[in-house]
Amino acid sequence: MSEDTEVKIKEILKKLTLEEKVAMCHAQSKFSTKGVERLGIPEIWMADGPHGVRAEISWDDWAYAGWTNDSITAFPALTCLAASFNPELSGDYGFSLGEEARYRKKDVLLGPGVNIYRTPLNGRNFEYMGEDPFLASTMVVPYIKGVQKNGVAACVKHYALNNQEHWRDRINVEVSNRALHEIYLPAFKASVQDAGVWAIMGAYNKFRGQYTTHHKLLTAKILKQDWNYKGVVISDWSSAHSTYESAHYGLDIEMGTGTDGLGTTTRDFYSLYHLATPFLESLKKGEIAESVVDDKVTRILRLMFRTNMSSNRSLGNANTKAHHDVARQVATEGIVLLKNENNFFPIKDDKNLTIAVIGENATRSMTAGGGSSELKPKFEISPLEGIKARYKNATILHAMGYETGASVYDKVLPPTMDQDSLRIAAIETAKKADIVLFVGGLNKSHLQDCEGDDRVDYGLPFGQEDLLNAIYKVNKNIGFVLLTGNAVEMPWLDKVDALVETWYLGSMSGHAIADVISGDVNPSGKLPFTFPAKLEDNGAHFFGETSYPGVDMTQQYKEDILVGYRWHDTKKIKPLYAFGYGLSYTSFSLSDIKTDKAVYTSDSTINISCLVTNTGAKDGAEVVQVYVGKPNSMVKRALKELKGFQKVKLKSGEDSIVNINIPANTLAFYDESISDWNLEKGDYIIHVGNASNNISKTIIITLK
Amino acid sequence: MSEDTEVKIKEILKKLTLEEKVAMCHAQSKFSTKGVERLGIPEIWMADGPHGVRAEISWDDWAYAGWTNDSITAFPALTCLAASFNPELSGDYGFSLGEEARYRKKDVLLGPGVNIYRTPLNGRNFEYMGEDPFLASTMVVPYIKGVQKNGVAACVKHYALNNQEHWRDRINVEVSNRALHEIYLPAFKASVQDAGVWAIMGAYNKFRGQYTTHHKLLTAKILKQDWNYKGVVISDWSSAHSTYESAHYGLDIEMGTGTDGLGTTTRDFYSLYHLATPFLESLKKGEIAESVVDDKVTRILRLMFRTNMSSNRSLGNANTKAHHDVARQVATEGIVLLKNENNFFPIKDDKNLTIAVIGENATRSMTAGGGSSELKPKFEISPLEGIKARYKNATILHAMGYETGASVYDKVLPPTMDQDSLRIAAIETAKKADIVLFVGGLNKSHLQDCEGDDRVDYGLPFGQEDLLNAIYKVNKNIGFVLLTGNAVEMPWLDKVDALVETWYLGSMSGHAIADVISGDVNPSGKLPFTFPAKLEDNGAHFFGETSYPGVDMTQQYKEDILVGYRWHDTKKIKPLYAFGYGLSYTSFSLSDIKTDKAVYTSDSTINISCLVTNTGAKDGAEVVQVYVGKPNSMVKRALKELKGFQKVKLKSGEDSIVNINIPANTLAFYDESISDWNLEKGDYIIHVGNASNNISKTIIITLK
Repeated sequence: MSEDTEVKIKEILKKLTLEEKVAMCHAQSKFSTKGVERLGIPEIWMADGPHGVRAEISWDDWAYAGWTNDSITAFPALTCLAASFNPELSGDYGFSLGEEARYRKKDVLLGPGVNIYRTPLNGRNFEYMGEDPFLASTMVVPYIKGVQKNGVAACVKHYALNNQEHWRDRINVEVSNRALHEIYLPAFKASVQDAGVWAIMGAYNKFRGQYTTHHKLLTAKILKQDWNYKGVVISDWSSAHSTYESAHYGLDIEMGTGTDGLGTTTRDFYSLYHLATPFLESLKKGEIAESVVDDKVTRILRLMFRTNMSSNRSLGNANTKAHHDVARQVATEGIVLLKNENNFFPIKDDKNLTIAVIGENATRSMTAGGGSSELKPKFEISPLEGIKARYKNATILHAMGYETGASVYDKVLPPTMDQDSLRIAAIETAKKADIVLFVGGLNKSHLQDCEGDDRVDYGLPFGQEDLLNAIYKVNKNIGFVLLTGNAVEMPWLDKVDALVETWYLGSMSGHAIADVISGDVNPSGKLPFTFPAKLEDNGAHFFGETSYPGVDMTQQYKEDILVGYRWHDTKKIKPLYAFGYGLSYTSFSLSDIKTDKAVYTSDSTINISCLVTNTGAKDGAEVVQVYVGKPNSMVKRALKELKGFQKVKLKSGEDSIVNINIPANTLAFYDESISDWNLEKGDYIIHVGNASNNISKTIIITLK
Repeated sequence: MSEDTEVKIKEILKKLTLEEKVAMCHAQSKFSTKGVERLGIPEIWMADGPHGVRAEISWDDWAYAGWTNDSITAFPALTCLAASFNPELSGDYGFSLGEEARYRKKDVLLGPGVNIYRTPLNGRNFEYMGEDPFLASTMVVPYIKGVQKNGVAACVKHYALNNQEHWRDRINVEVSNRALHEIYLPAFKASVQDAGVWAIMGAYNKFRGQYTTHHKLLTAKILKQDWNYKGVVISDWSSAHSTYESAHYGLDIEMGTGTDGLGTTTRDFYSLYHLATPFLESLKKGEIAESVVDDKVTRILRLMFRTNMSSNRSLGNANTKAHHDVARQVATEGIVLLKNENNFFPIKDDKNLTIAVIGENATRSMTAGGGSSELKPKFEISPLEGIKARYKNATILHAMGYETGASVYDKVLPPTMDQDSLRIAAIETAKKADIVLFVGGLNKSHLQDCEGDDRVDYGLPFGQEDLLNAIYKVNKNIGFVLLTGNAVEMPWLDKVDALVETWYLGSMSGHAIADVISGDVNPSGKLPFTFPAKLEDNGAHFFGETSYPGVDMTQQYKEDILVGYRWHDTKKIKPLYAFGYGLSYTSFSLSDIKTDKAVYTSDSTINISCLVTNTGAKDGAEVVQVYVGKPNSMVKRALKELKGFQKVKLKSGEDSIVNINIPANTLAFYDESISDWNLEKGDYIIHVGNASNNISKTIIITLK
C-alpha cells in the first residue's frame, strides 16, 4: 500500500461511527460483509475456492441461489498443481482463477489451501499442496500473486494446524514450536512475506487449548507481529468462538457464525456474531479499546483499496480458452505416472485394439461434492468422454463395475443400481477387451476426499479391490487410472501393469487423462506426498490414536518435524511410492552434479548445477530435486529436506544445465531454546536426484 | 462516445459468435443480461426506478430476493419533482439516485418516466412528469444527466403513448401525427437530443395496430433514424411480441418475457424469447441479416463502455445525508398549496393548540405498493411522524378514520380493522382538537395510484368524503393534506379551509410535509397537471369510452393536441385547479414585463424579462411562466402553450429581474401535410404569469 492510501484510510477512519466500524467486522450475509453506504465504501463479496469460483450461495443459508451465470472453469485440485512442480504454471493457475473471480464480481477468493498433508486420511488434503513446506511455499506464492493481479484477494487457508477434518471444530492440536515453524507455518509465512497475500483464513481447530481463528500466539503474535502481516484475517465459516479473543487475537472479519451455530431463529442473527453486538457493547463500555476495532477496520479498508476500491482493476473473464488450456496443462503436468510395466502406457489408438474402461470414476463428476470446494463448471470432461474423444480408431467399451450413491453434506445416499449386475457387466466387458483401464480411486463423497470428516479406511472403497481381482481373472492387461486427493493402500498393485495418479482435474479432466495415457503429453508430475505401504508406516499414524485422530479431543503431533518423507527417510520405512517420485515415457540422466563452492557463509547462496539429459526416445520433462541434510546436528533432524527444485523440459536427446540456488540461511532449524531460527555451522549433505528416493549424487558442503 | 470507443466496439464485434451476439439481446434473469465471459464483457444489471433503486428481485421470478443490503433512499414521486418547476433540483435528484444505483452495482436504472398525463385515472401518472411536454422535457434532461454522471444509464420510459394502465398490454392507440410529435414525443426527444440518454424502454401498448416496443414508425424511424439515437431500446418486462418486429423495428434488449407470458415450465425460458433462439434461427437461415444483430450489439456495447466497461466510474453511495436533503428539498419544493383560507397554514407550534391528524395516509407506507416503482427504503417518515417530530409544543392527536387492506399486485386484501370503530374514534378525536389535519387522498394499492390498472373513480376512495363530512359537523377547522399522484374530484372542497397537494414523498415524506405546514419552508410548487372539476371536463374523457379507455381494444385520442390545460384553455372549461397553479405564504408581483424586441426572425431568440417582487412578509419562491399562443393559425392551436419558466427565490421585499429565453423555432407546430415542423410567420401572443390561469400580461410579437 502506498503511504497515500494509508493516509486515506486514516481519513476514512475518522469519519466512521463505532457502529459502522463494527458492522465491517462481520458478515451481513453468507458471503458478504457490509460497506459504509453513506461514504460509498463498498461491500466485500467473497467466494469459495480454491479450484474455481463456487456457484452463488443464497443470502442467508447454504442453499445454492439458483443463478445461471455462475458456471465457471474448474481447475485441477491443488494436489495436482503441487505435483506439477511448476511454479510458473501455478502463476498461470492463480491468474486465470483470479480473472474468473473478478468476472464473477468477487473481491476475495477463499483459497488457496496450504495445510500440510500429515495423514492420508484427511478428507481435505486434495485442496492442499502436499506434505512438504518448501514445495507448498514455492507453489503457493505465484498462485497468490496471480490471483491478486486481478484486484481480487487470495485468502490463504486454514491458519493453522487444520490437518484433519475429523472433529475439526473441536480438536485441540499439540505440536512443538519447532514443528510448527519448520513444517506447518512456512507456506503461510511465504504467502505473507513473499506473495504479499491480502487475506488469511483462520481454522476450525484449537492449538494448545485456544481456537486458532483468534489465537494469541499464532495470529496476534506470529502472523501480525513477527511477520508484520498487514492484511485481514477472516474466520472460517463458524470458526469464531469468543468476542474477547476475536477482538484481541487477530480476527478481523467474522463469517458464517450465525447460520451454523447460534441456534437462533431471528433473521438478524448477524447481529449476534461475536464481532457484532457483543463487540460493540464491549467497545462502548470501554472493555475493549477503540484502537482494537480501528486496527481491524484499517486492515479491511486496506483490503478494499487493493480490491473493490481500486481504480484500475480489469474486468476479468471466465471460461476462456486460455483458462481451459491452463487447466489442461496443470492437469497433464500434475498427473503422476507411478508404474508402467511393459510400457503399458502410452496406449496407441489402434483400430484392432479394444479398451474396456471400467469403474465409476470414469463417469462420476468430481467437481460435485467435496464440501466448499464444490464447483458448477460449465463442463466437466469425464475420463470416459476424454478417452472416447481421443481414441477414434480403437473400440472403447465401458462398464461402471460399481455405483456409489450421491453425497449431500454428511449424508451418503445408497446406490440406486444393482451392484451385482454392474459387477457382472464389468467382468464381461473386461473379457471382451484387449486391455482394461480401471478408472477408480476415491471420490468427493462424505468420508472420502471431502470436507467435514476424514476417510475411515486407507484402502480403496466401494469393493474396488474385489472387482479388480475379479477382472484380473479374465484380463491381465490392466492399467489403473487412480483419481484421488490422497494416498491409498495398494495390496492389488501387482495385479496392474500400470498405475497413473490423476488427482481431480476439473473441467478438462478426461482430456488431460487422454493426453497422458495416449502419449500426447509425456507425464512429468511428481508426488507431492508419500504413499506409505500401509497406514501405520505414516508418521502421524505410527503413534496411534493419541497422535491421530486424538483422544479426549486432543491430539499430539508425536512425529513432530518428521512429516511425510522426513519420517520414512529418517526411520528407514520404505514407502510404496516416495515423495518426489514420478515416471516418464522417456528417461533422463543427471550428471555433472556439483556445487559452485565447497564452503559457504551464512549469507551466501549455494548454487547446485546439474546436467540433465533426455536419454530416451520421447520429449519430456524432469524435475531435478535438491534435498539437504545435516549430519551431526545439535538437534534431531530429518535425513534430508527439500530445499530446491527445477523442472526442465527436454526434447529427446537434448540436454540442459539446471542451476538451483539455495540461500544458506534456509538450512536453519527452529531452535526452541532461543525461540528463533538457528543456522548451524558445519557440514551439510546435498542430495540431488529426481525423487526423494532416487538420489543421483550427494555432495558435502561446509557452512562456516 | 469517442471514435476510439467505436473502433473498439467494431473490434469486439468481429470476435463475437452469432450465439454470443444473440445472447446479449435478451434477459438471462429477471433483471440482467448475459455478457461474453470469455472476452471479459460483463453482464448488464438493471433495477427498477424511477424514485429509488428497487430491492433485489429473485433470479427467475418476481419475488424479492430477501437480501438485507438493498434498503435505499426513496425520493419523491416524479409528479412532485415536476411540480417543483426546478430543473437544477432535478439534476440533484438524478445524480443522487444515480449514486445509489451505482452503489447497488446497477448499470441501468429503469427510469425516469415521461409519459404525458392524459387522464387523471391513469394508475401510473405518479411516475411521470405531468401533462405538459415542455415541462416534462425541461425537467427530465437534468435528471438523466445526473444519473448518467455516475456511469449508470438512465432508461427513459415508456416509449411511447402508454398513457393508461387499463388494458395496457393490448390497447391500441390511435392518435394524430401532430399530437404525437407535439405532445407525446417531445420529452423523449429531449431525453435523446438534449440529455443524451443511454437507454429507452418500450411500452406495452400498441400504436396504429403495432406494439410500440418494436414499432416501425416510433422506434425504427423516429427514434433511431430521425433523432439519430445511438443508445439501446429495452423492452418493458414482457412487452415484446414478435421476433421479426423486434429484430427490424428497433428493439435491442428483450426483458421479462419468459416468466410473464410464455406459459412454459422449462427453466430455460429465456431461450424462448423472441430475441433468443427464434432470432438466432432466423439469423442462421439468413431470414434476418447479421447486420441487424450487429447494430443491436453495437448499441449494447456502447451502453457498456458508458457504464460497466467504463474505467472511471465512481463507487456511488447510498442513504447519505446529502440524498436525504435532496429528497426533502424536492419534496418541499414540489408540495403545492392549493387553498389556504384564513391563513390556515402555516400552523404554529403552540402549546395551547391541539391538532387532530386523521386519515390512513397519515401512517400508511407509500413506498410499498404501486407496482415496479415499489421501494424498500431504509426509513420512511410518515406524515404523522413528521408532524409529531416538528410539533413539540402542540398536542397531536391521531385517528386513522378508516383502514384499507394491503395490496399485492392486482389483489386488494380486505381491511383487518372494524371500520365503524375507526370512524367513530376519528370523529371523537376531531371533537377534541382545535384543528383537523385530514391526511387522505389515494394510495399505492391496485386501482389507486398503482401500475397495472387505472383508477375506477375520479373521487376520493375509501369513504373519505363521508368521513370528512362527518368530521366537519364537529370541527370546522380542517386542512386537507392530499397524498396523490393524480387529480381527484373535490365536491368537499368548501368543507376545508386549506388544501395542500403533497404527492408521494418517499423517505422524508413526513418531515417535508411538516416543513411546509409549519412554515419552515414556504411552498412554491406548481401543479404539473390540471385538476378538472369533474372527470368529463378532461379532454380525454370528454369524448367518452372511444377515447378512454377504448372500445374493442382501440382508443382514439380524440382531444388530439388539446391535452390538459390546452383543452381547458381552448374549450374555456374552468378547471378546479389549473396547470401551473400553486399558492405561497407570501405574495409576489410580476411587473415590467416585456420582450426584448417586437419582431423576430425564425432563428432568433425571444427574450422575456419580468421584475418579480416578493410583496409579502415571508421569504419564498415564485415560478414565472411564459405561455405562447398563435392567433389566426393555419391549423387549430391551443390557446397557449408553456414555452418557458423560471423559478426565483426572493426574500421578503426583495425583487429580481427574471429573464426567459424562448428560441423562436420552438413555436413551430407539427405540420402533417409536410410531415415536419412548420414555423408560421405572423403574430404570436406571449402570456406571462404565475399560473396558466393567472396571466399578468400578454404581449404580441411578430415573427417574420
